[in-house]
Order: sequence, then structure tokens, then C-alpha cells
Amino acid sequence: CSSTTPITATLFPGDGIGPEIAESVKKVFTTAGVPINWEEHYVSTEIDPRTQSFLTWESLESVRRNKVGLKGPMATPIGKGHRSLNLTLRKELNLYANVRPCYSLPGYKTRYDDVNLITIRENTEGEYSGLEHQVVRGVVESLKIITRQASLRVAEYAFHYAKTHGRERVSAIHKANIMQKTDGLFLKCCREVAEKYPEITYEEVVIDNCCMMLVKNPALFDVLVMPNLYGDIISDLCAGLVGGLGLTPSCNIGEDGVALAEAVHGSAPDIAGKNLANPTALLLSGVMMLRHLKMNEQAEQIHSAIINTIAEGKYRTADLGGSSTTTDFTKAICDHL
Amino acid sequence: CSSTTPITATLFPGDGIGPEIAESVKKVFTTAGVPINWEEHYVSTEIDPRTQSFLTWESLESVRRNKVGLKGPMATPIGKGHRSLNLTLRKELNLYANVRPCYSLPGYKTRYDDVNLITIRENTEGEYSGLEHQVVRGVVESLKIITRQASLRVAEYAFHYAKTHGRERVSAIHKANIMQKTDGLFLKCCREVAEKYPEITYEEVVIDNCCMMLVKNPALFDVLVMPNLYGDIISDLCAGLVGGLGLTPSCNIGEDGVALAEAVHGSAPDIAGKNLANPTALLLSGVMMLRHLKMNEQAEQIHSAIINTIAEGKYRTADLGGSSTTTDFTKAICDHL
Ligand SMILES: CC(C)[C@H](C(=O)O)[C@@H](O)C(=O)O
Ligand SMILES: CC(C)[C@H](C(=O)O)[C@@H](O)C(=O)O
Repeated sequence: CSSTTPITATLFPGDGIGPEIAESVKKVFTTAGVPINWEEHYVSTEIDPRTQSFLTWESLESVRRNKVGLKGPMATPIGKGHRSLNLTLRKELNLYANVRPCYSLPGYKTRYDDVNLITIRENTEGEYSGLEHQVVRGVVESLKIITRQASLRVAEYAFHYAKTHGRERVSAIHKANIMQKTDGLFLKCCREVAEKYPEITYEEVVIDNCCMMLVKNPALFDVLVMPNLYGDIISDLCAGLVGGLGLTPSCNIGEDGVALAEAVHGSAPDIAGKNLANPTALLLSGVMMLRHLKMNEQAEQIHSAIINTIAEGKYRTADLGGSSTTTDFTKAICDHL
Repeated sequence: CSSTTPITATLFPGDGIGPEIAESVKKVFTTAGVPINWEEHYVSTEIDPRTQSFLTWESLESVRRNKVGLKGPMATPIGKGHRSLNLTLRKELNLYANVRPCYSLPGYKTRYDDVNLITIRENTEGEYSGLEHQVVRGVVESLKIITRQASLRVAEYAFHYAKTHGRERVSAIHKANIMQKTDGLFLKCCREVAEKYPEITYEEVVIDNCCMMLVKNPALFDVLVMPNLYGDIISDLCAGLVGGLGLTPSCNIGEDGVALAEAVHGSAPDIAGKNLANPTALLLSGVMMLRHLKMNEQAEQIHSAIINTIAEGKYRTADLGGSSTTTDFTKAICDHL
């Protein structure tokens, strides 16, 4: 069911190569006739006292109002007294689940064929609490926080995702043999939710074993759900199986239906402004955003055009071993539409 | 320099397949003429109040006295009121560094060729503190502890290892962009030690990026040093690159020159007693023990015999796709000696 009334979405082009790859998305979306008006917001050069960060209050309000957005890479400026831009977005917008599909791109060979994994990461707590103390000189502690509320919420999201996306299995990744109370609570919540989804196979896998199994045979997994830090680690590992963060999309899910799709690679300042960046991760993140908006027809069209362009292999950016510019690669995708 | 006065070493055959693979080690060592008397200790069926665990006081005293030992898999009996056997050993014997070489075995094909990595894991603190609290119902916290003393100690071990083993680079793995104080202290200690080893290249890699790089191109790394949990995760990932924990040795280093070599795979109760287990990990761990004892000649002989037997491919256990029994595989190794 493709919508025709235009939708307003927030766009954070971000830093470094961000503006170039955002340009690519706008081009491709326009060519495909996607009815979206972008509300563009850049990272500020000054700290906004209302957010305590370089993100302006207006930009956060824009996502809250539109409930949907797309974000390029944002390098957090060095210095004290402000928060990381990515963490600020997650906290302020309550983006509780980070969804990263990792699948092999036809025609782009890695050591692994037919990878098809979804990692779903709790995005708000765990090791990312920011609570650290020096107890006595030379002894530092940091607090990992696991709550029932956040664990149930992300577990519910994972099982619902599995069910609505034709997936068969959810694996909860943990280290509850060591962190019995924190990771134990996470597992308990996953089990509670699993009972409501008898059609989905549920299993629990210890993180070290999970990483070993993933590199030996990723086909053993389907949907993986886990606390924040494990999600950070495993989602990058999975991205590595299919070629890296330049090729994998992601979408952050918040309360009240907010969705912020995001390219999670870096801002690559060394090649910024040179028309060399690969826009694939941001484009595929844009496709996730369209699916979230139920613009399925355009989502599939654009997805196929990206996949086919890469599969053909004639136009590829330098990171994929080609010599195309960002604009040439983008044009090739538009030609496929 | 091979010793001829016999040395007494502690042997923990462990549970499940443990006794069978320990038998294999004894057979191979005897055939190679290794001058070692084994002091065998089994896991008790009752909790020893002096250790609060199923490990007896006598078995710990044996390692303390001999300063060297070899350990098979130990499944911690289910139940409350006692500590994990592995963790008890690490704590009681102050086994502060866990060293795991991961290298491709000639003739045993995986997706990766020429892997040659050493992971060195801090083994006593971090997320393994065992300190967890439920703050209010549904909110649980666990404490990660990083100390200057333990970080310096493992960093020193890693750089010394690199220098004495002809290695060129040490990578400290961390998540200090999020855990600035704890992982930050770990990095600070690594940097301090790095300054004393100008001939070794030092770098710092964020754990998520490290996992992505490892699966894309493990040749980017050489020696990796890291806090406890990251070590747990990355050492299993690296083992997966070359075939899994059944093929990778490990050695725990303690204060006062204690070394406890260890096969880190599970006790595989399903195949226990069936003469099907693969003794490779325990054999290679035994080789690490011999090198620690400076019995280099026998170490290299046994190492070659293991490697050549696997490379030939005529005798392989079921986990490596063969149909040999443990005793046949062991005999084949002895025949190579
Ligand atoms: C940049 C960093 C703070 C971030 C994280 O650790 O979550 C990144 O690795 C990610 O996965 O989005
Ligand atoms: C069994 C478990 C407690 C242990 C650990 O987490 O350290 C294991 O995974 C290991 O790596 O030795």
C-alpha cells in the first residue's frame, strides 16, 4: 500500500561524507517518486544548552514531530562538557531498539554466502549508562544497568519483528553464566515474551559461543536480540561477514512510533567532499525507513535498483574495489529505477 | 634446552570427555619421553569448605606447589552456594592472564588461511567481579571493576610476550569511547607499558570495529590484549576463524611463575566415554605448558606430530569430519613422533 500524500521526514545529513551520501538518497528517492519532503537539520557548531549537545533542540523536535527520519554519520566534536551526538539522539528520542539486517549482497563476494541475519540491540541502557566512578586511586568501576522495562520492550520488538517478517527463530545473546542477575533479568524477560509467540523458536546463546558460531556458520542464526554492548559488538561482527558498515543499513525504533534510520559507518573525513563515498548504507537505511512508512512499493523498487547496480559491478565506489564516483554510482541506481 | 630431571605437574583431567583426552596427552608425552610426573586431581563430588567449591584444597595446593599444570574441561555442577570451578581456579591461583594462540592448522580448511593471532585476556576482574545488585524491583546493576594493578600486569605480560615471541604489534581492545573511565584506565596502563617497548607497534582498537576487522581480515592483527569480557568474546571469535575451541590451546599465567594450561572447550557429556573426543586442544595446551617449562625440544616434536597428523588427514576425529577414535588419533600422533 503506497502512500501518495507527501510525508515530512527529518534528514540529518551529518558530517564528513554525510552531505554527499544524503544527496544521493535525495536524488534516488526523487527519481523513484517517493512522496517525502525532507526537513534538513545539521549538527550545530555550538552547544545548545537545551540539549547539552551540538544537536539543536529544533532538530530533536523535528524528529518528534515527524516521527520518522534518516541520519548520516555524525562525528562527535572533541572536548568536554557535552554528550556524544549518537547517544544524545538515542536518549532524547528514547530510541530503544536498534535493528540491523545483515545480508549478503548478490555479486559482492565475501567469505560468506547467503548471510541473512537480523540483530536487534537494546539501545538505551546496559554498559552505556555513563555511570563510572573512581573508588580509590587506581580502582575504577562502571555500572551496567539492566531493567525489566527496557528488556521486555526490546524482546517484544524482536519477537514482533520475527513474526511480521516471516522469521522463524529468535536467539537471545547473553553472558548470564557470569552476570547472573543483570543478563539473567534480560533472559527472563525474553522468556516471558517468547511464551506469547509459540510459533517462533526461542533459544539462548552465550555471547562468546555466539561469536564463534557466527564466524563458523552464520546460517545457524536468524534474529538475534541482546543487551546494548553485545549488540554493538555482534552487529559489527555481522556487518563484517557481508562486507562492512558501508553496506549495512540500520534503523532505530523509539516509543510512540518514532523511527530513525541511520547509516552507522563513520564520517570518513579523509575522503569527504571528494565525491568518492559509498552511499549504500544510507540508501539501504532509507529503504528501511520507507518500509517503516509502509511505502513498500517504492522501498522494493529502490532496494532492487541498489542491489542490481552492485551486482552488475559496472559502477562501484572505491571501497568495493571500483572507481566510480558517488554521483556516477547514484546515477546508475537511478537508471535502474 | 630440554630438561632431564623429571618435573612434577598437576593434571586436572576434568569431566565428560576430560579423562579420555587427558589419557591421550599422557600417552603422547610418554612416547615423546617428556620427563613429567603427573599429580592427578579430580573435581570432587562434595563442596570443600576451604575453597567453597567442588575443587579440593589439595588440588589447589598441588598447582601452587608444582607451579605448573594442565587442565581439561570442567563442568560446574548445577546448584547454589558454590562458585564456578573455572572462576575459582582463576581467583584462587591468581591466574591474571589468559593466553590463546589461534593459528590455521595446515590441511584443515576453514574460510580463513594463515591466521596467526594471540589473544591475551585479563583474567581476574572487569565484568567478572561477581558484584550485582537489584536496586529496586526490575532494576539490576552489575559492577565492572578495572584496576591499575591488573591492567598494568596484563599489559606488561602482553608486551613481554610480543617481544620474546618475535611479534611486532600489540593492539589494545577497548570501548573507551563509552566506558571512558574503566576502559580509559585500561588504555592508559597499556600506553604506559608500550613506552617501554619502542620496538613493538602499539595501537588501540574499539571492540566493535575489532570484531568487524577480524572477520574481514584477521591478518590486520598480531597480539591483542584486553579486559576480561572482551577477551572472552574475542578469543572465541578468533578460535572460530580456525575451526573452533576443539583446536585451540590456552594457558593461564599466574603470579610467582604459575602456569595452568587449559583446553577451553566444553566437557561434551553426550560423547563422553565413547572414545570419540578430539584431544587436540588439550594436546596443544600441553605443548604450551612444555614451552613454559622450556622443554622446547619435546614441545616442537609433539607440536609437529599433532600438526602433521591433522594435515595428513588420514586420522581425524568426527568433529573434524573423520571417523577415527580418540585412541587411533592418539596412536597416529605417537607414530609421527
Ligand atoms: C559511536 C559509538 C558510540 C556507537 C556505539 O557504541 O553505540 C557505534 O559504535 C554504534 O554502534 O552506533
Ligand atoms: C565457562 C565460562 C565461565 C568461561 C568464561 O566466561 O571465562 C569460558 O567461556 C572461558 O572462556 O573460559
